[in-house]
Amino acid sequence: MGLVGTLNGGPHMTKHDAPLPIRVIVAGAAGRMGQEVVRAVLAQPDLQLVACFDRVYGPEVVPPASGARMASSLAELEGVEADVWVDFTVPAFVKTGVSWALEHGMVPLVGATGMGPEDRAELAALAERTGRGCLIAPNFALGAVLLMKFAAEAARYFPAAEIIELHHERKVDAPSGTARLTADRMSAVRHEVGLPSEPLEAGEEAIAGVRGGACGGIRVHSVRLPGLLAHQEVLLGGTGELLTLRHDSLSRESFMPGVVLAIRKASSIRGLIVGLENLL
Amino acid sequence: MGLVGTLNGGPHMTKHDAPLPIRVIVAGAAGRMGQEVVRAVLAQPDLQLVACFDRVYGPEVVPPASGARMASSLAELEGVEADVWVDFTVPAFVKTGVSWALEHGMVPLVGATGMGPEDRAELAALAERTGRGCLIAPNFALGAVLLMKFAAEAARYFPAAEIIELHHERKVDAPSGTARLTADRMSAVRHEVGLPSEPLEAGEEAIAGVRGGACGGIRVHSVRLPGLLAHQEVLLGGTGELLTLRHDSLSRESFMPGVVLAIRKASSIRGLIVGLENLL
Amino acid sequence: MGLVGTLNGGPHMTKHDAPLPIRVIVAGAAGRMGQEVVRAVLAQPDLQLVACFDRVYGPEVVPPASGARMASSLAELEGVEADVWVDFTVPAFVKTGVSWALEHGMVPLVGATGMGPEDRAELAALAERTGRGCLIAPNFALGAVLLMKFAAEAARYFPAAEIIELHHERKVDAPSGTARLTADRMSAVRHEVGLPSEPLEAGEEAIAGVRGGACGGIRVHSVRLPGLLAHQEVLLGGTGELLTLRHDSLSRESFMPGVVLAIRKASSIRGLIVGLENLL
Amino acid sequence: MGLVGTLNGGPHMTKHDAPLPIRVIVAGAAGRMGQEVVRAVLAQPDLQLVACFDRVYGPEVVPPASGARMASSLAELEGVEADVWVDFTVPAFVKTGVSWALEHGMVPLVGATGMGPEDRAELAALAERTGRGCLIAPNFALGAVLLMKFAAEAARYFPAAEIIELHHERKVDAPSGTARLTADRMSAVRHEVGLPSEPLEAGEEAIAGVRGGACGGIRVHSVRLPGLLAHQEVLLGGTGELLTLRHDSLSRESFMPGVVLAIRKASSIRGLIVGLENLL
Repeated sequence: MGLVGTLNGGPHMTKHDAPLPIRVIVAGAAGRMGQEVVRAVLAQPDLQLVACFDRVYGPEVVPPASGARMASSLAELEGVEADVWVDFTVPAFVKTGVSWALEHGMVPLVGATGMGPEDRAELAALAERTGRGCLIAPNFALGAVLLMKFAAEAARYFPAAEIIELHHERKVDAPSGTARLTADRMSAVRHEVGLPSEPLEAGEEAIAGVRGGACGGIRVHSVRLPGLLAHQEVLLGGTGELLTLRHDSLSRESFMPGVVLAIRKASSIRGLIVGLENLL
Repeated sequence: MGLVGTLNGGPHMTKHDAPLPIRVIVAGAAGRMGQEVVRAVLAQPDLQLVACFDRVYGPEVVPPASGARMASSLAELEGVEADVWVDFTVPAFVKTGVSWALEHGMVPLVGATGMGPEDRAELAALAERTGRGCLIAPNFALGAVLLMKFAAEAARYFPAAEIIELHHERKVDAPSGTARLTADRMSAVRHEVGLPSEPLEAGEEAIAGVRGGACGGIRVHSVRLPGLLAHQEVLLGGTGELLTLRHDSLSRESFMPGVVLAIRKASSIRGLIVGLENLL
Repeated sequence: MGLVGTLNGGPHMTKHDAPLPIRVIVAGAAGRMGQEVVRAVLAQPDLQLVACFDRVYGPEVVPPASGARMASSLAELEGVEADVWVDFTVPAFVKTGVSWALEHGMVPLVGATGMGPEDRAELAALAERTGRGCLIAPNFALGAVLLMKFAAEAARYFPAAEIIELHHERKVDAPSGTARLTADRMSAVRHEVGLPSEPLEAGEEAIAGVRGGACGGIRVHSVRLPGLLAHQEVLLGGTGELLTLRHDSLSRESFMPGVVLAIRKASSIRGLIVGLENLL
Repeated sequence: MGLVGTLNGGPHMTKHDAPLPIRVIVAGAAGRMGQEVVRAVLAQPDLQLVACFDRVYGPEVVPPASGARMASSLAELEGVEADVWVDFTVPAFVKTGVSWALEHGMVPLVGATGMGPEDRAELAALAERTGRGCLIAPNFALGAVLLMKFAAEAARYFPAAEIIELHHERKVDAPSGTARLTADRMSAVRHEVGLPSEPLEAGEEAIAGVRGGACGGIRVHSVRLPGLLAHQEVLLGGTGELLTLRHDSLSRESFMPGVVLAIRKASSIRGLIVGLENLL
């Protein structure tokens, strides 16, 4: 690719200091999320799609004019130089791909979920050893990430809080991963400042389940209805006041500004970090 | 009181057809709700407070200038002529008081809760025998009553619905009586039009209770937080759309327009009816 | 089509009384809304798509297997027998098409907007003369229609109300037609019961426009933001209580249950009626 | 008062390092807000109410057992040693009182509004000269302050935002001071990151005012209805997502946790600062 030099994991420069585009590989490029990422990367002049990776491709995944290599095995990626590895593959593959990327000098940005604490520890060790950063982000929507951050920050000042998450009726799990993560972060802050680790006992349930499920010190309620997409509301109650934080997500597109932001900040990541909020 | 004649349970007229005020007895007049009713009746020129009834009175329950008799037993009420008996007494007394009122030619308007189906049947029989109307209204807030009515009406057109009710942290029961009643009415309509009597099965609960409690075909979620008062939200979901009906109640005053409306329409009630919506 | 007989504007029956499908022509079939209607009609076993009408067709508007005639002029529709004419054409054409449909024995259901009072009067006269029904529905989303109906009903009981409508940033007009119509209906009810025809004077505007625009007795606020689709909230305020009615529309699909309902009830329409709520 | 020593404007200690209570004077103590502050201070064991100040007192403003001096002129306060001066007096008096407090070695915490930029500059100079801190807080409700902080932080990541503030119908000004302040902070951040200083042009107003009033780059809508108290909603819209921050205030009590927090942190304030968020 005719580069004069490449800084470690950061934007590479010519000797005249003109910034070169950040080189990106999209893994899981043929999936619904991967295709959005491909489109988002191609739309940014400071980003360059150098390769796509997926097991199987449908037609027209990548405009041929992009010049990106289309690989369906890691072997086919050998020789491709890149700065960032964006991973929206399946849980079974993530660790393999991310390890490969770290060993090949890239910063992995992982949107796929399903990694356990052991996998994370392993990746953290590998990131340490290779001197690269690595980001695992359960949610790339800026609004969702800000909501989580604000909820954790506010949890310190309110005696009690509950979460209502609302999704379309085809969602198979309850509560949502984001609700769980939000409750965890809020509970951690509550613990820090000495607030109770159990939710407020408020009356008795005449019908089992109406008071929701307890996630640490926070009760969570999951609503499932047609006509909904993906929504989350955090309610924090104090003396004579209520603070409500709500996020509504309409489409996969909502993740793209967060993905692009993470690609641009990838070179500043040190070690393994979890959550896009660390880059805000 | 110098009345020339009194129509049965209706507004009484002089021979010149000038409307006389509707005569009201407030039972439970020293309670928090009773005192609001006393104030509301005194504030309306077309209503006349003829007597208050309560076991024990605190100071200044009724402005002395009102001329209302203050009774602490039913015996002390003998000889008082009235059109309407507004009852916010305790559950243990309601049936006694309402029976007495029906037998003395008044229309009872009952805000107190806690009457079972047997008590209701007994009162219905007594209303029938005395030829009087009688209203039992679990909620006198016009907005709450309209919400229930609209929710039942809309239930016919949407495949699925859930209820979120939100109250201050000192409320002892969950779900609220209003949420239960709303769910019952919606379920009845769903049954009528052949919609399922069980709520939508949507995914599995990883944490018990997050999906709320089932009230007929409707899932109900109860939120309890300081900073809340009394709120209810009905969400109805259909293809690509969501209809939300919400009621917020800030104070006991919110019940007064409904109480006054019921007093004015009392003479039109036939037999025992349940729910202020029957007068709207 | 081998029909034995056709009832006037209603479902046509064989002599054995087995119901035949309702025959539908979709006008504006190549537009975004028209295509949804085509899909919705094809999906219902009791409806039959007999023809599509549009000036120009793109590829694959109608599955060829449907057997529907594809016309690009009214002349090409001659000889097609149908019960219902669903019209989502452009304002400039609506009157021509609807007149043609009425004269050919069909009940027009018109979703297109942009007809003035004179056009409506003309169509009403024509419907009268031909003895057919005709529906003009500014909004076919059941939830939106119910919201309008409920808002008008509740307007009678609350001293004041405001409307907030929220749409994506590409919407060119403000307020939305639905907000305007809702305000009109609420104002009419307010007038009926003697409520003021001007909105509450509440304080002074330090910044022009913050108090919204007055539509009869109702103030309307229009929010325009990316991330929004089409939403409307009616807030009704009374003593110590607030009633909020909200509708969220996610997709054009949300109109289809209303269109299908109107097709099924078309034969019961008498004369020109405006608003789907008349069929609920 | 037998103190061994007093740290500059901070909690004063005996020589054995046992913390002594923070000594508080409440100015405007007979007003509705002042009385809440008196109650809040008396309820905290680490705070000591040493004096109240107001022009005129009604009965029972301060429990006599508190031992606090009740002054109705600054002269009557001479000789009272205190650490913090909480000021909820009228605009016309604020500057006089705060200057006096600074010169007498106290940290003023000012809740009263109505000071212009010149007054602020003068107080900043005085704080500088006396070496004391001083806080001007337009809103002491923690939730309202957090909302403002979060709104400013999120403004950086969203292309557009609007504010809806909702208050009871007796509020005389529109928009609310808090809405204005929120819009100002958000506009400042937008300016910083190069977002437009004018709100999005979105369509035309068919009715003047529906698109709200522009406060910098943010449109503000003011709703006024009975049944409302004090509420504010900030909507931030981005690609396919919406972030909503809402605060509901039910009572003056909601300000007390913020006042107490500010009293406790008063000794850490340097110079004149505006906004409670600087202490969070």
